[in-house]
Amino acid sequence: MTKRLLALPLALLAGSAAAAPPPAIAEWVAGHQREIVGEFLDLLAIPNVAADRPNIERNAAFLKAALEKRGFRAEVLPTDGNPIVWGELRPAGASRTVLIYFQYDGQPVSPKGWAQGDPFGPVVRRGKWLPGEEPGFVENARELTSFERDWRVYARSASDAKGPIMAFLAALDALRAGGLEPNVNVRVVMDGEEENGSPSLIAAIERYRERLAADQMLVFDGPAHVSGRPTLVYGCRGIHPFRITVYGPKSGVHSGNYGNWVPNPALRLAHLLASMKDDAGNVRVKGFLDEVPTPTADELALIDAVPGDEAGLLKAFGIAEPEQPGLTLQRALLRPTLNVRGMQSAFVGAQARTIIPDRAVAEMDIRTLVETPGERLVARVVEHVRAQGYHLVDAEPDDGTRARHPRLARIEVDDSPLHAFRTPMLSPESRRLAAAVERAWGAPPVEMRSMGGSVPIAPFIQALKIPAVLVPVVNYDNNQHEENENLRLGHLFDGIVTYAAVLRMRD
Amino acid sequence: MTKRLLALPLALLAGSAAAAPPPAIAEWVAGHQREIVGEFLDLLAIPNVAADRPNIERNAAFLKAALEKRGFRAEVLPTDGNPIVWGELRPAGASRTVLIYFQYDGQPVSPKGWAQGDPFGPVVRRGKWLPGEEPGFVENARELTSFERDWRVYARSASDAKGPIMAFLAALDALRAGGLEPNVNVRVVMDGEEENGSPSLIAAIERYRERLAADQMLVFDGPAHVSGRPTLVYGCRGIHPFRITVYGPKSGVHSGNYGNWVPNPALRLAHLLASMKDDAGNVRVKGFLDEVPTPTADELALIDAVPGDEAGLLKAFGIAEPEQPGLTLQRALLRPTLNVRGMQSAFVGAQARTIIPDRAVAEMDIRTLVETPGERLVARVVEHVRAQGYHLVDAEPDDGTRARHPRLARIEVDDSPLHAFRTPMLSPESRRLAAAVERAWGAPPVEMRSMGGSVPIAPFIQALKIPAVLVPVVNYDNNQHEENENLRLGHLFDGIVTYAAVLRMRD
Repeated sequence: MTKRLLALPLALLAGSAAAAPPPAIAEWVAGHQREIVGEFLDLLAIPNVAADRPNIERNAAFLKAALEKRGFRAEVLPTDGNPIVWGELRPAGASRTVLIYFQYDGQPVSPKGWAQGDPFGPVVRRGKWLPGEEPGFVENARELTSFERDWRVYARSASDAKGPIMAFLAALDALRAGGLEPNVNVRVVMDGEEENGSPSLIAAIERYRERLAADQMLVFDGPAHVSGRPTLVYGCRGIHPFRITVYGPKSGVHSGNYGNWVPNPALRLAHLLASMKDDAGNVRVKGFLDEVPTPTADELALIDAVPGDEAGLLKAFGIAEPEQPGLTLQRALLRPTLNVRGMQSAFVGAQARTIIPDRAVAEMDIRTLVETPGERLVARVVEHVRAQGYHLVDAEPDDGTRARHPRLARIEVDDSPLHAFRTPMLSPESRRLAAAVERAWGAPPVEMRSMGGSVPIAPFIQALKIPAVLVPVVNYDNNQHEENENLRLGHLFDGIVTYAAVLRMRD
Repeated sequence: MTKRLLALPLALLAGSAAAAPPPAIAEWVAGHQREIVGEFLDLLAIPNVAADRPNIERNAAFLKAALEKRGFRAEVLPTDGNPIVWGELRPAGASRTVLIYFQYDGQPVSPKGWAQGDPFGPVVRRGKWLPGEEPGFVENARELTSFERDWRVYARSASDAKGPIMAFLAALDALRAGGLEPNVNVRVVMDGEEENGSPSLIAAIERYRERLAADQMLVFDGPAHVSGRPTLVYGCRGIHPFRITVYGPKSGVHSGNYGNWVPNPALRLAHLLASMKDDAGNVRVKGFLDEVPTPTADELALIDAVPGDEAGLLKAFGIAEPEQPGLTLQRALLRPTLNVRGMQSAFVGAQARTIIPDRAVAEMDIRTLVETPGERLVARVVEHVRAQGYHLVDAEPDDGTRARHPRLARIEVDDSPLHAFRTPMLSPESRRLAAAVERAWGAPPVEMRSMGGSVPIAPFIQALKIPAVLVPVVNYDNNQHEENENLRLGHLFDGIVTYAAVLRMRD
């Protein structure tokens, strides 16, 4: 079974950069690709796994210097864990303040499976690497002055998320080269433990609250819309994983000697899951969808304007139709999900044995909305399971419990769920941001009311209580968290344009 | 998750040897425990994994000599694989001939997990070893003249199936010591590849058909009834495993980005399984139970006379009630099963990921009857799956197939099913055998119309077309096929008595 998430094919990116970029910034980028890519390769060459403290500190020092070079007052702020890189730029005449969040740590690496061997030995490749292809790396990449838009930089954190850092630094350079400065006060917070859930950053909020104060928060992280168009994301769903275990006999028993007599937990789990969500994709857990809000007509107009090549997605995923034919992807994201993300009972394949298994396990996740917190939805699933006749235990059942209850199950809730957040799409701050991006590109950005997914930074956003918007710029098919992580250079160059525009938001 | 089949607790064996054994044979056994156990330990010390040809040949030579010592004409017969040990004893005046089947190979071993270290270094233990207990082996076991009935010999093949071989050899010795011989002609066939499915034996049937001819076949293998009473088994269910794969997206996709939109194969498999067998344990596949025969009143009387400590079994298995409360275990075995023996979709536990899995797999097994062959039952499952709207593929689906069919599944049928066999319980041969055992023990044996399980020897029985009955003597909780395989000495000693009685069947 493949362990890989599906990467979207390049064909879906054909719409990249649908509108023309603004001449001044784009021209500067075109003329300075060597410097931009060079500094990016330098940054990527510093290993940044959160547990590797000496290298984390090298990253922090590099980033502090990079900010200072752009006129920022910068500091490396201690926390209980990895340091925060903080910086501030106060241009003359700016009144409003934006806080921009970045992460500088990356996912742990296993060099096996990387075409280049070393995930911290960044390389440039002519296009996307597909399994089985030759590496095809560009030689002497640092000496080139121009790079094709479809070429990619391969390294850990190329997209998640040193790419956005580099786009931001280059945007500052581009503005300066044109004699411009941001017209907002810019505060920067760079997190060194995002891939661990940002514990030290969140713990340090009180200590540094004054340095983090702002009118608006921007998160420069995540992939842009699959169309490649500039993208604003006003929120994300939360995630609340839990596990259901249905108990059978204490240990597997012989399917011949006891088949038809000892109850089968895999079959019981099948009935339980089937009772939760019908075969047409409708959740049947009582109350699960009760508090789901209906978007306003104006919001719905923006939601329905999100471009969606659904035919292309179906083809890429290899499915004939969505779970509920007729429901668009964007409208599907307006609801919480109830998803089976994994399931196991005894063994399959060569290890399969002729038994009635001792248990069956389903790993579930619920994607939540602000209005439907995970705690409440899980409680409704618990009620549903009880209503199917199950006695719920909170530990492995003992003999007495087994003897008393024909149907036994356990529900274990993940202790680190991520909460949803959502900033109103139609607030003045949100419209100001959208207008800035639209001015730069001559076309409106893709505006998403909420990502389908979840971000570890949600608790940070909640704690700061600053309206937050994600401004993602990297390519969707970046192999984030996997081997062969990459950033498409066209996305990097366009990201510089977008970030420069954001830094010049009009009041 | 435990990989172990449930071993029944000793408490269930309390009824062992309910009737008094016949004095002459039992007395001889009591007085010759040292010789019996000693020869048994010698036999167990020869490794007998089928792939280990040199040791397989040492076993064959040992067994040939052991038969010759008991007056048999014995041969080691070549096959395409491991040799057959064959022997014949033609007592004066005997007219009928029984063919007795044994296996002399054992399951592959992994020393890890064996309390004694070496599975081929047999040891005697004071009672059953339970996980966490000290080994408690008996020192100098070969020098003892008497062993407690609850003591056990631990070694690979102790029960499966060198124990029955030893019981048979000692039964011949016991008869001789009393001046008796079998009153039937005895042919012995010892299989060296049973754990591989006996391919070479079955292929050699034509070559040795004359040597295998007999009026009745007895299979000296398998565990006796859990009560410990002498047991006759007139057949077994077949087993027909198959695998159902329900396809989702080509690879796992992000449960946040696409949850509620990309169909979930784990949920679909849950619905499919739930449609096959309802939550009360009734198979809902059309026609699945159509040809199941109704036993005659006389058969039913024997079936219902099988002792069953169902309360004890429920307790041992840790379940509150059977799948269909009110259905006895023996009556449950009269039907074919539809069992989920394994299930998997993506991952559970620490490896779980927030995805919509690419596929969900259920490993199934059907236990078949002579009247309901597996091919026919699987065909009905296939029809059922199609009736749920699935398009079935016979290989991984290609893009075109994926685009055309919203529901895609694959059913792969195991290419080495085992067939059922059944010898009439009420035939003269069957009654003669039962009468011999009853005479020896002063009480009727447990007579089972069919085992719930399946035996690899079924095709051999089918090919020979000789009415076959299993005469199992080893303890149920013998850890067959697992680490710490063992034979309870009380069962070995009682087995000698039972086999001696069988060899003295009256015409």
